[in-house]
Amino acid sequence: MHPILQDIPIGLDATGVRVETDSMGEIEVQADRYWGAQAQRSLKHFSIGEERMPVAVSRAYGLVKKAAALVNAAEGRLPQWKADAMIRAADEVISGALDAHFPLFVYQTGSGTQSNMNVNEVISNRAIQLLGGEPGSKSPVHPNDDVNMGQSSNDTFPTAMHVATLEALDDRLLPELDALAACLEAKAAEWHDVVKIGRTHLEDAVPLTVGQEWSGYAYQLRDAMAALSATRPGLLELAAGGTAVGTGLTAPAGFGVNIAARIAELTGRKFITAPNKFAAQASLDAMVRTSGALRGVAVALIKIANDMRWLGSGPRCGLGELFLPENEPGSSIMPGKVNPTQCEAVVMIGIQVIGDDTAVAFAGSQGNFELNAMRPIIINNVLRSIRNLTDGACNFRRFSVEGTTLNTKRIAQHVANSVMLVTALSPVIGYDAASKIAHHATEHDLTLREAALASGTISEQAFDDAVDPAKMVGSGLAGA
Amino acid sequence: MHPILQDIPIGLDATGVRVETDSMGEIEVQADRYWGAQAQRSLKHFSIGEERMPVAVSRAYGLVKKAAALVNAAEGRLPQWKADAMIRAADEVISGALDAHFPLFVYQTGSGTQSNMNVNEVISNRAIQLLGGEPGSKSPVHPNDDVNMGQSSNDTFPTAMHVATLEALDDRLLPELDALAACLEAKAAEWHDVVKIGRTHLEDAVPLTVGQEWSGYAYQLRDAMAALSATRPGLLELAAGGTAVGTGLTAPAGFGVNIAARIAELTGRKFITAPNKFAAQASLDAMVRTSGALRGVAVALIKIANDMRWLGSGPRCGLGELFLPENEPGSSIMPGKVNPTQCEAVVMIGIQVIGDDTAVAFAGSQGNFELNAMRPIIINNVLRSIRNLTDGACNFRRFSVEGTTLNTKRIAQHVANSVMLVTALSPVIGYDAASKIAHHATEHDLTLREAALASGTISEQAFDDAVDPAKMVGSGLAGA
Amino acid sequence: MHPILQDIPIGLDATGVRVETDSMGEIEVQADRYWGAQAQRSLKHFSIGEERMPVAVSRAYGLVKKAAALVNAAEGRLPQWKADAMIRAADEVISGALDAHFPLFVYQTGSGTQSNMNVNEVISNRAIQLLGGEPGSKSPVHPNDDVNMGQSSNDTFPTAMHVATLEALDDRLLPELDALAACLEAKAAEWHDVVKIGRTHLEDAVPLTVGQEWSGYAYQLRDAMAALSATRPGLLELAAGGTAVGTGLTAPAGFGVNIAARIAELTGRKFITAPNKFAAQASLDAMVRTSGALRGVAVALIKIANDMRWLGSGPRCGLGELFLPENEPGSSIMPGKVNPTQCEAVVMIGIQVIGDDTAVAFAGSQGNFELNAMRPIIINNVLRSIRNLTDGACNFRRFSVEGTTLNTKRIAQHVANSVMLVTALSPVIGYDAASKIAHHATEHDLTLREAALASGTISEQAFDDAVDPAKMVGSGLAGA
Amino acid sequence: MHPILQDIPIGLDATGVRVETDSMGEIEVQADRYWGAQAQRSLKHFSIGEERMPVAVSRAYGLVKKAAALVNAAEGRLPQWKADAMIRAADEVISGALDAHFPLFVYQTGSGTQSNMNVNEVISNRAIQLLGGEPGSKSPVHPNDDVNMGQSSNDTFPTAMHVATLEALDDRLLPELDALAACLEAKAAEWHDVVKIGRTHLEDAVPLTVGQEWSGYAYQLRDAMAALSATRPGLLELAAGGTAVGTGLTAPAGFGVNIAARIAELTGRKFITAPNKFAAQASLDAMVRTSGALRGVAVALIKIANDMRWLGSGPRCGLGELFLPENEPGSSIMPGKVNPTQCEAVVMIGIQVIGDDTAVAFAGSQGNFELNAMRPIIINNVLRSIRNLTDGACNFRRFSVEGTTLNTKRIAQHVANSVMLVTALSPVIGYDAASKIAHHATEHDLTLREAALASGTISEQAFDDAVDPAKMVGSGLAGA
Repeated sequence: MHPILQDIPIGLDATGVRVETDSMGEIEVQADRYWGAQAQRSLKHFSIGEERMPVAVSRAYGLVKKAAALVNAAEGRLPQWKADAMIRAADEVISGALDAHFPLFVYQTGSGTQSNMNVNEVISNRAIQLLGGEPGSKSPVHPNDDVNMGQSSNDTFPTAMHVATLEALDDRLLPELDALAACLEAKAAEWHDVVKIGRTHLEDAVPLTVGQEWSGYAYQLRDAMAALSATRPGLLELAAGGTAVGTGLTAPAGFGVNIAARIAELTGRKFITAPNKFAAQASLDAMVRTSGALRGVAVALIKIANDMRWLGSGPRCGLGELFLPENEPGSSIMPGKVNPTQCEAVVMIGIQVIGDDTAVAFAGSQGNFELNAMRPIIINNVLRSIRNLTDGACNFRRFSVEGTTLNTKRIAQHVANSVMLVTALSPVIGYDAASKIAHHATEHDLTLREAALASGTISEQAFDDAVDPAKMVGSGLAGA
Repeated sequence: MHPILQDIPIGLDATGVRVETDSMGEIEVQADRYWGAQAQRSLKHFSIGEERMPVAVSRAYGLVKKAAALVNAAEGRLPQWKADAMIRAADEVISGALDAHFPLFVYQTGSGTQSNMNVNEVISNRAIQLLGGEPGSKSPVHPNDDVNMGQSSNDTFPTAMHVATLEALDDRLLPELDALAACLEAKAAEWHDVVKIGRTHLEDAVPLTVGQEWSGYAYQLRDAMAALSATRPGLLELAAGGTAVGTGLTAPAGFGVNIAARIAELTGRKFITAPNKFAAQASLDAMVRTSGALRGVAVALIKIANDMRWLGSGPRCGLGELFLPENEPGSSIMPGKVNPTQCEAVVMIGIQVIGDDTAVAFAGSQGNFELNAMRPIIINNVLRSIRNLTDGACNFRRFSVEGTTLNTKRIAQHVANSVMLVTALSPVIGYDAASKIAHHATEHDLTLREAALASGTISEQAFDDAVDPAKMVGSGLAGA
Repeated sequence: MHPILQDIPIGLDATGVRVETDSMGEIEVQADRYWGAQAQRSLKHFSIGEERMPVAVSRAYGLVKKAAALVNAAEGRLPQWKADAMIRAADEVISGALDAHFPLFVYQTGSGTQSNMNVNEVISNRAIQLLGGEPGSKSPVHPNDDVNMGQSSNDTFPTAMHVATLEALDDRLLPELDALAACLEAKAAEWHDVVKIGRTHLEDAVPLTVGQEWSGYAYQLRDAMAALSATRPGLLELAAGGTAVGTGLTAPAGFGVNIAARIAELTGRKFITAPNKFAAQASLDAMVRTSGALRGVAVALIKIANDMRWLGSGPRCGLGELFLPENEPGSSIMPGKVNPTQCEAVVMIGIQVIGDDTAVAFAGSQGNFELNAMRPIIINNVLRSIRNLTDGACNFRRFSVEGTTLNTKRIAQHVANSVMLVTALSPVIGYDAASKIAHHATEHDLTLREAALASGTISEQAFDDAVDPAKMVGSGLAGA
Repeated sequence: MHPILQDIPIGLDATGVRVETDSMGEIEVQADRYWGAQAQRSLKHFSIGEERMPVAVSRAYGLVKKAAALVNAAEGRLPQWKADAMIRAADEVISGALDAHFPLFVYQTGSGTQSNMNVNEVISNRAIQLLGGEPGSKSPVHPNDDVNMGQSSNDTFPTAMHVATLEALDDRLLPELDALAACLEAKAAEWHDVVKIGRTHLEDAVPLTVGQEWSGYAYQLRDAMAALSATRPGLLELAAGGTAVGTGLTAPAGFGVNIAARIAELTGRKFITAPNKFAAQASLDAMVRTSGALRGVAVALIKIANDMRWLGSGPRCGLGELFLPENEPGSSIMPGKVNPTQCEAVVMIGIQVIGDDTAVAFAGSQGNFELNAMRPIIINNVLRSIRNLTDGACNFRRFSVEGTTLNTKRIAQHVANSVMLVTALSPVIGYDAASKIAHHATEHDLTLREAALASGTISEQAFDDAVDPAKMVGSGLAGA
């Protein structure tokens, strides 16, 4: 006879403390918490800073534990009744219902063992409760022997990192970037024939259309998204099965393949077992690559946001070609001032992503032998970057890009005033003669037409044929 | 007759929403919150990521507002009864009692205006309440005209940044680093005569004492602390008084000097008005320098923590010269394993500080004209680094350095086995002859003494005179 | 009648100076140099540091100019006789025979215009010479009107960047990395059954084989190479055809497609015209991505090199499991000392690549409007990283990896001594009982076997069945 | 009788090769080179990249060797005749006359031992030649026993790093920065009363004078210079005397103090012996700090250069307030275009300094035990940054800042058009009423005066009293 799984709501109805034990002895845990001795020791020794291990990690870890239980039960190593209780508890972890029971800090053991044990302990205690047992007794569900069966932190923590990262990419960041890119593309289409002055080196150049300029923004972003997606296959490779050092010691043959298949099944993503477990546990190269691709998104967004705030600068003394939405008063002292704050937030997010990525690359290089023990900061930085970029892209689109409109009057003035349309004369009269006209116009504050005719090197007719901004912008949104 | 300041406890006893207004019109705010329209707009447009503007900023801002009110009242621009109410509210902000009313995110306007307005609004509404008025009415205490009197976000936000940073440095980080350095020095003194093998390029070298090695750790840390302290004068210079662009427009003559004096008085720190307001508002160079000095602390701590974990590596197959405290089980799968987790946390903190500092330097370079609009990430990164280093240093000392002991047996074996003591023969028989002995010993697995005598180039007596580890370590803790 | 192409060897047989002109007037150039006025002005205004524009850039630029001449001649815009002279000159540029005539510094105009004009001027003057004309006369081959026909620096400089980068990747770096990976794989195969102790957190862990450990190194490197190769498609997209701002002004329709086709033909690489010229000229995102992938190689190499130097540490007081080749004396003072210098060089190269990549990402984010004017440092950093990694990988393989051998005696001792084989008992007697044995062994300096039998929880037979290192390493090189 | 020092010019009049030896045996060296076996081995094993150990290092090393010879001779350890020959050779090294004999690459052993041996060998062979002996014979001047007497690479390489760095700072960078700051200050003084519109968030703000804006630039730079100078004391501390691991083994008592005194005497700089040799050899913290301070200069220069190129943008469609000198044609395709290329170069230099500094910090954290073996990239990056900043500051001043003039017409238009002068109304009519006027003016394209009078909240007289740009800029160059 085995214990019966009962339908007990989440919650430990106890006050004071409970004694939990591990190989180092006893330690007191707040009685209404599911975690055990090792999580408690971590809290004691690692109360550092304000950042906790992201909940996405414990939720993803729940999935890993569920998959392990399914595999272990299917292969007869774990009694079904135990597995059922553990899976029920794991489902609660996955759902976020037990989030409050994962209090550990980011700065902890570099392998993530303490977070793994936190998950093992919570699932153990919750399963024990569901089976009518006593929390902390490790019976009938033991955190190491049962919940961690066939596993090590060394293989499961990077597995949870990959699962959590992919989910955040697929379900959150990529859709938001897609929405932003679509918005930029819509603007490009809308403004496909508005001729404006081009600028290179910040200096007046030959014209293009506003739509063309924005098509470049959209293309940059789509390109960065493609590069980000291209890092997904690395994340789909899971270390689970390698156990302590990659050899799979204590796990049965095939465990890696089977647990990856279960995780794939549970998530609908094409997870596979990592082809080389030693690389998968001693490095975090796939995470470093994803971080690098997030940086690529940041680089594109900084360019776009900077362009928008410069083009919107003014209202009287800037470039003034765009009207950005006025979301809030901009100054505590200057009445009526409105600032490109969404653009500033995007630039700041981009810079932070670049800084966090520097930490990821450094940490990624610091593995030794069979383990890279810099995991917590790598997952924390990557998830933070994803979150910041997701929210930033969303707000930027909603509160800035969508509502941006053109100052067509100013745009037309700039085209009309520019001297750089002289470039169109170059194939007609040669670069050197055209240069003289341009310098003459600038020095004497003439229009290009005035200066050109004054030069005697071109007729009125020829000038007007050659210098027509609308004919100077090529034939398509994507350029030449 | 003016309103009377009443003794009303903190709290707005209202449900539902309250209508607040600003120059953009009306907006609803949760009725039990003190903030106003502009903070509310920020919440709406900038819900980005998980990081909020650090409470240290709003508390320091409370101080700035209190000092401004004192100056304005003293000079007769602000009625004393208004100032009294504002100061009472500011004191509550300073104390942290109103922390819950500063909900804004880090990613917001790059000037910090929204956080300034958040403070202005909270102080305004709280002061209104204390004076029996109606929150949201802006009367009798107006967030801009009264609380922000003589100020701009452009000068006060960097002022609050400096105040918050200095406080965190002086009251938290520097004392914790001092405690760690003292602990390292105590270890160095305790082990001043334990001879150990030196290692350069990771390879066996000539001996030194354990105490000497640790004196180097302590010195590195003290040196980094001194460099950090040397950035304090830059932080003591306050932008307040420059208002919108540095000219002090709307502030009376002397306001900058006076408010700095008040802040100095209130904090007991030697704050002065920034000698050049344009630099103080358009750059954040003092913050960049402090961040760079925090990085210097990180660089030293990484070296120390790495040495400790390598010297403690084992227990059987590593260097094994140190016993680090065993704080928690190290592995979910390998029974009895204990890991140098405090050292790992310190290394991770150090790497994160370096990454965050990269973001600070990038952001610090991106000022334009009269403003650097990357302030929120600069203050957030600097305060985060300070916090992480503070807590990391504390835990590292308590849970790792203090309890570290020597494996004197292993240390002695290493000294006895090493071939590199041959260096002491070099002045006696020359570098080339000594080299031959060393290579001979290594290749034939001989002790240095055996190889030396076998070479025929030195007598037993001369060897024993020259090769005495205890004589090879010089004369002091600090080395030659 | 047109001038005849003559077979004149490279060299201007003149002394003193020659007067060259551009739109700013006259300037003197050393008479035996082919460059013209604009290169000379650059030399005057930009003598900064020690780094010159890499020769790979001018050589790749020669290819671009040749392709342009071929297209322009084929379409009848350029007389064939002129094209022939220009192509002959361009071939000399491509071959490196004119390297000495490209003296410009890295720090120059951010668009690379000065290097483009340097190429235009050299080809112009050399073609003029070949056609019997007078250098500096711009006749019959004009640097702008003829050599730059249908082009701008804005589109051709990034084109040359992509061509130069791809060539360096394909012809130099990837083959060297492949050779290194093959060498690592050969070592892994050779040592596939040598059981050694694993290490996690630097601490003794369960065993694996040396071959498995090295298979991880090889896999990391192969993985990084694949990610690097995956950035090639971005580099295959060429901006040429976009001219000044991406619209293709002054270039005929189809010029972009045609010049890309010619470049593809001349190089045997699948170059295509960039799908969006605005993105291609205003960003350098493809270069940033390649730089990020170079960083990925660096991250892997740092791990590998660090492992090797730690495993080779000693000879008496380190881990001592590897013998690295002794290439040179290691110390000016310690006779007979040999150090892991190749590993140190690899680590330093890796760190420099990471630093240079930080600069690339920062610069990549700083485009404005129709141009990213940070091109010179991006190409310089990327080519430097490629060169350093190429040479570093080559030397590391030849002088360190190939000659590394095993200290099998030490390796066996470590396995025999380790306590962590206790993990194999965990599935037999449970994690908690196994933990006790491990702690007991460590504290009392017992072998694992002694401690296990003393515990009374396992029989001799059962112990020997469970704890057999050779059975603990799984079944394949790649791990579980 | 001892050999006589002869007056032999530099140069080895020999062809073919010479056999040199070290503890690893014989190796052939080109006969006309002074270096010996170890430098030759380094060339063979470390031909990596294009960067050689900077000549500043070998020259500074010459100084260290000279000082060592002086101390050793004075204390009777080294015969005076030997010392004389060595000092003569060292003087030639210091002067740069032997630069061609220091061919080693940056990427080499991490301790710099090979460059130390290169110096030892060159001085040995040159001294042998001067004494009539045979190069390669090591007699009568031995590279290790004589030239390296009392020294190790571990203490002398960082000594040479500090000497080389300080010299480059004091003699090159700081004077150039001073000249640039003085130039900025002269501009600030010249334009002290030219009122211009301020800009915050890139948006129109209240006015200041051009001189005030530039006083901020100058202040930033002076501030960064002061912070750079503040790192000098760390560089003045020399490791020499610590020998292999910091204990001073093989060096006589007082050697560290004495050699530092000699170096101080020879250089006229206040060098002292490092207070803690273990920190001085195991870390490079003083170098990391100097690198961080160089980054501070870069951060300031990026801000200044960006401001200048934006303020000079145009000529017709940008901000157009400054005329930057026109140094060269800006475009190969757009006739007459002139670009802010000096500013771009400064920004690129700044970004590269930041990237190189990232590498320095990373490398600085990677010391182990008694040595930081990342020295070559640290000195290379620091000297490169110093060189780039020196040359960049010089060119920037000469070719951009000095020749910059004002577009006073445009500056006046901007002030006249701006709406933000409304801020001056705020103390008169309140923030809310002023906001309404500002919004009204912007929306209806009115001047501020028109909108203010239309609002009915202020009289003509009161408006004109309050809104006078010349009165809005405060009273001094440095602001409020």
